[in-house]
Amino acid sequence: MRNFTFQNETKIEFGKESYKKLPEQFKKDGIDKILMVYGRNSIKKIGLYDTLIKDLKDAGIEVIEISGVQPNPRLSLVKEGLEKFKNEKCQAILAVGGGSVIDTSKAISAGYFYDGDIWDLFAKKAPVKEGLPIYTILTLSATGSEMNGNAVITNEKTNQKWDISSKALFPVVSYIPPELQFSLPKSQTINGGVDAISHVMEFYFDTTPRTEIQDALAEGIIKTVIKATETLIEDPEDYQCRAALAWGATLALNGLLATGKQGGDWSSHMIEHALSAKTDVAHGKGLAIVFPAFLEFSKSKIMEKLDRFAEKIFGIDTGNKGYDSDLAIKALKDWYRKIGQPVKLNQIGVEENQIEEIAENAAQISPFGQIHNMNKKEILEVLKISYK
Amino acid sequence: MRNFTFQNETKIEFGKESYKKLPEQFKKDGIDKILMVYGRNSIKKIGLYDTLIKDLKDAGIEVIEISGVQPNPRLSLVKEGLEKFKNEKCQAILAVGGGSVIDTSKAISAGYFYDGDIWDLFAKKAPVKEGLPIYTILTLSATGSEMNGNAVITNEKTNQKWDISSKALFPVVSYIPPELQFSLPKSQTINGGVDAISHVMEFYFDTTPRTEIQDALAEGIIKTVIKATETLIEDPEDYQCRAALAWGATLALNGLLATGKQGGDWSSHMIEHALSAKTDVAHGKGLAIVFPAFLEFSKSKIMEKLDRFAEKIFGIDTGNKGYDSDLAIKALKDWYRKIGQPVKLNQIGVEENQIEEIAENAAQISPFGQIHNMNKKEILEVLKISYK
Repeated sequence: MRNFTFQNETKIEFGKESYKKLPEQFKKDGIDKILMVYGRNSIKKIGLYDTLIKDLKDAGIEVIEISGVQPNPRLSLVKEGLEKFKNEKCQAILAVGGGSVIDTSKAISAGYFYDGDIWDLFAKKAPVKEGLPIYTILTLSATGSEMNGNAVITNEKTNQKWDISSKALFPVVSYIPPELQFSLPKSQTINGGVDAISHVMEFYFDTTPRTEIQDALAEGIIKTVIKATETLIEDPEDYQCRAALAWGATLALNGLLATGKQGGDWSSHMIEHALSAKTDVAHGKGLAIVFPAFLEFSKSKIMEKLDRFAEKIFGIDTGNKGYDSDLAIKALKDWYRKIGQPVKLNQIGVEENQIEEIAENAAQISPFGQIHNMNKKEILEVLKISYK
Repeated sequence: MRNFTFQNETKIEFGKESYKKLPEQFKKDGIDKILMVYGRNSIKKIGLYDTLIKDLKDAGIEVIEISGVQPNPRLSLVKEGLEKFKNEKCQAILAVGGGSVIDTSKAISAGYFYDGDIWDLFAKKAPVKEGLPIYTILTLSATGSEMNGNAVITNEKTNQKWDISSKALFPVVSYIPPELQFSLPKSQTINGGVDAISHVMEFYFDTTPRTEIQDALAEGIIKTVIKATETLIEDPEDYQCRAALAWGATLALNGLLATGKQGGDWSSHMIEHALSAKTDVAHGKGLAIVFPAFLEFSKSKIMEKLDRFAEKIFGIDTGNKGYDSDLAIKALKDWYRKIGQPVKLNQIGVEENQIEEIAENAAQISPFGQIHNMNKKEILEVLKISYK
């Protein structure tokens, strides 16, 4: 365990209809005009939009809207939202949706306090110093964005999917009502589960020695999310499994698992970001393809951990045979297949000759990684393993 | 899992010599005069006192001191500290020590904003509404007080060991440097481990159904703390075990394990508080006696959980024999014996005829408990089981 600083001030309001507390919170915080950010129709279909607008109106809160956020959220919409926020002189942002909506809101927030081109912040040409008050109502558990200061945005002009991270971007309050996820398409539930597990794994395979307590917590979260995801595929309205997946996804990336580690590895995420920047594949699908390939590429450096992973997560008796990292990687891929995820690039229509440009895209922000120093050569090797 | 609100704003600075960052933090927070609360000689013996006073002086921070805090900290010292804080017009409190020192500091903080007799707050005649900025340097991991808003104080005139709890009492920053605990007496390390585990168990045995993720986290913390405590008995200067025990003890009572539960049970703690109010036994010893007796008393209501506990914590194959709660309770008592804790009241010199008055004392704040509605009759039964 290394030295660490931990602080997470976001308030979580978790549970059925917890968003009903939102108008009261705005009043308490002196907010009476907000920019509400959301996606397309899903929040209208589940009736959340109408309820929310009525509740906010009844409380005397003026709502300016910006909608149309897509998965792999676009920079252009961020800029549009920022313009609207400024013109309308809003006081806070309400993100109603999943990680894409929250990340769009965080980017607006960061951009508000920066005079130059907002993409500078993502290119790390300037730091994010300040943020607007952000409130979120989570309708899709996956990214953990509801309780951290990270945001990932795609610049659709340059095909770059890059991130920002700052203490200033933590939401003030996040409402997590699991029942809002009952009607999610099956694929989104699955992608969410895979994303959550992948966040945990980024920390778990960080090679910092002696992190017993973090590893035990990580295993608890992964096992719970795996079980909940499996049940939800069969019964999407199982409230308790929605709750377990939701809270697990939040805890996966709220800083708890980062304590004492060297930041996590994140190579799989960086490579996947390049993959979805180039192909627009869903993040959870991309991770199911890239992560096992990355583990394969890294196995000589994380043998002991892979063995423990096989044993603790999948109950495989690794016995006295010495380390056999392939057991863990095979079990993980088998589980992805079982829940219907692709595990190879060729399953999602990527051609072999695209690998080079994906690697090139990822290499723009190289070197990265805690386990290796990942540059284009290493990224290419991972992508080749992941091809077929 | 039930609905819950979770928020914990305390900043943790964890790791070797992390307290070196303290003067800078005070400067940043605009604090230049503090009341420093500590116990007796231990912080002087380990050299912390001298280093700290020098660092604070060099940073231009004026230090007013109050010392002499004992285990089961006394109300009289709280009042003395409050007087000093007011007379000297301090701006913040620095607690340097373990839970007793931090709790004393919190009581001073709560008392500062209350005009009546400070004990009213503990008797729940008035709520704690506001608090002073508290900073802590932890030298004994056990109570978790470094990352929550709870404090337990003993009124030595009335022999009442009662608690307060408020959002206003969370420390601003807590420094947790594990190496400061290298020279702790063995018994204090053991009591600390037992206290931490007991906090986890209070939540674990809460009978709220379907709390898989909290239970998995709880098991991870208990197992890590058990292993760390065992190693530290042999090698008190094992930094990584000190770190694991320290972070485990903090996480045990920072709100994480309370999420989705019905508050935890806390009967064992309430009964133990009465026990140490009457006998001044160390909290960790008292818990090793009371907790297994409480589980015995409760076993028909928590059979399934006890079975899981035996399996997950002590690796006992409970097989297909149906539930056998005695396995878990026996394993827990065996572990307490193994690390040298008493498991019966008669081992710490309590006479059978004292049981009545201990029960009477605990019953003053009854009914309590999540599993049962504990009144004097039930408290007496637990104490009888715990006698010999």
